Amino acid sequence: MSTNRQFKLKQRPVGMVKREDFEFVCGPVPEPGDGEFLVRNAYISLDPAMRGWMNEGKSYVPPVGIGEVMRAGAVGKIVRSNHPKFAVGEHVVGLFGVQDYAVSNGKGVTKIDPKLAPLPVYLGTLGMPGMTAYFGLLEVGKPKAGDTVVVSGAAGAVGQVVGQIAKIKGCRVVGIAGGAEKCRYVVDELGFDACIDYKNEDVRKALKQHCPQGVNVYFDNVGGDILDTVLTQLAMRARIVICGAISQYNNTAPVKGPSNYLSLLVNRASMTGMVVFDWADRYGEAVREMGGWLAAGRLKTREDIAEGLENFPETLLRLFKGDNIGKLVLKV
Amino acid sequence: MSTNRQFKLKQRPVGMVKREDFEFVCGPVPEPGDGEFLVRNAYISLDPAMRGWMNEGKSYVPPVGIGEVMRAGAVGKIVRSNHPKFAVGEHVVGLFGVQDYAVSNGKGVTKIDPKLAPLPVYLGTLGMPGMTAYFGLLEVGKPKAGDTVVVSGAAGAVGQVVGQIAKIKGCRVVGIAGGAEKCRYVVDELGFDACIDYKNEDVRKALKQHCPQGVNVYFDNVGGDILDTVLTQLAMRARIVICGAISQYNNTAPVKGPSNYLSLLVNRASMTGMVVFDWADRYGEAVREMGGWLAAGRLKTREDIAEGLENFPETLLRLFKGDNIGKLVLKV
Repeated sequence: MSTNRQFKLKQRPVGMVKREDFEFVCGPVPEPGDGEFLVRNAYISLDPAMRGWMNEGKSYVPPVGIGEVMRAGAVGKIVRSNHPKFAVGEHVVGLFGVQDYAVSNGKGVTKIDPKLAPLPVYLGTLGMPGMTAYFGLLEVGKPKAGDTVVVSGAAGAVGQVVGQIAKIKGCRVVGIAGGAEKCRYVVDELGFDACIDYKNEDVRKALKQHCPQGVNVYFDNVGGDILDTVLTQLAMRARIVICGAISQYNNTAPVKGPSNYLSLLVNRASMTGMVVFDWADRYGEAVREMGGWLAAGRLKTREDIAEGLENFPETLLRLFKGDNIGKLVLKV
Repeated sequence: MSTNRQFKLKQRPVGMVKREDFEFVCGPVPEPGDGEFLVRNAYISLDPAMRGWMNEGKSYVPPVGIGEVMRAGAVGKIVRSNHPKFAVGEHVVGLFGVQDYAVSNGKGVTKIDPKLAPLPVYLGTLGMPGMTAYFGLLEVGKPKAGDTVVVSGAAGAVGQVVGQIAKIKGCRVVGIAGGAEKCRYVVDELGFDACIDYKNEDVRKALKQHCPQGVNVYFDNVGGDILDTVLTQLAMRARIVICGAISQYNNTAPVKGPSNYLSLLVNRASMTGMVVFDWADRYGEAVREMGGWLAAGRLKTREDIAEGLENFPETLLRLFKGDNIGKLVLKV
């Protein structure tokens, strides 16, 4: 416990993110001040949104500054504390950054119980991706029993939860994922009704086959051609949840707009953007309900655990290549 | 009253519609059968949607078949009747087509009172465009007093009504239109707060200037670059009403998708398509309320009246060139 390894943002990436966009530095372990505590990170979260945080210009949060530690969610253990409400030995989750140790004043930090679920689950199904799936699907997508729900990035951290919640709510669920292994995972292990392998299938034909009544809810994590294709298969009054667009985040060309958006008109459909932070005051409710589903075996969760803080850039790349199945985390 | 002039669809247009896409024929005036009546058209409606009806493939209504009379809304007078509920001398509005005379069984036909408003108004502000503006703005856009409402095609049949209703509801209203004369019309005569001349101004800069708090409701009649630009200026939780996309209807290239659609995510905004027919059972309510506004001078209406059935193709072209101010109709 003498050095703190950190990945700092060195330059704004152009196109696909790469190791040279970061600086890997070793510094002293910081000392928590009054009202602060020191966390030793155990697992670091890899999220598609991180690519956006590296860009210039404000989005829904300010960008990471050049020379700053790369922002990341993480779960860890408190090893020193001068904070009245956080004690040494407690486990916490927060935006602790890509580093071994972080100092925090407790703002935006949540205590977790490692006996209820393994630590990485608090970065996935019981963390931001799970919250995103829960509120995005239920509050924005508003599925009704019997609806056909399509989700892209189906084997990813958000997608795997979206599809399972939709099944719990009595929907027919069709995933879209890249590769046979992912498709097998969501159908055989998670119980989706079908999964379309966009790398090896004609997505439009497959949607027609698996969604003969059209798509009532589309939860979009990917954007690009897949969004455009799903637009051609909407049912009347369909709801599209715009959660992300991972296919577009490393573009050097402008984002591809959905050229079939007039299908919204013909089908009286809507496309609505969401950011999970808007439901922060209801996370507890979602964790309780999803925790119950997990305990009852109705909700399954998978984490893809890479190892070694030093491998952060390559691990982040795996996310954008779509290599992971389930929530991708890095064991420090 | 011996011949019935008709424009029939001869071929499906490629790109901009042209006279050669129609056949102008003279036939006998048809005889109404039992339960039918004969209407003599007085004014024919020119609507952007007509371009879509000329294309192959089902949209929200089936296409006009090759060799069929071109579909069009029209207002006229009953000159013969074998229908118990429609009498000779009554004025009616319906989809009577681009011709002098039409036979109808009364389905989808509405009686109108020419003493309450001039006949062309029943094709505009008290007709489909007015209904579209009323329900699209109020039911889909859901403006609140104090909101900033932007409407494109501001000097058109729908846009002129959208902006005035938004003003009545206490909103700040910014139009987008092509040319100084249209902009002068909507600001000086209709009372919009501002109008952006997209042909001579930088729309993005002008939106920033006129909508310093961002756009709460955008009523889109045009699509294309203007939709994409408005997307960059949304306020949080903005609502975009997709009513039409006249800039795209004569494209030979694919429709331009809105490449800034991820602004929906950042701003938790929505984009919703509408088709006015869904509110058919509430038209009466809208006509009563708008009729009241017209009588009180709170709602103004303008019609652009071209003359001569034989000039139908050129008049339709004027619509797509954006030549008209107010509702474009053709006096038979």
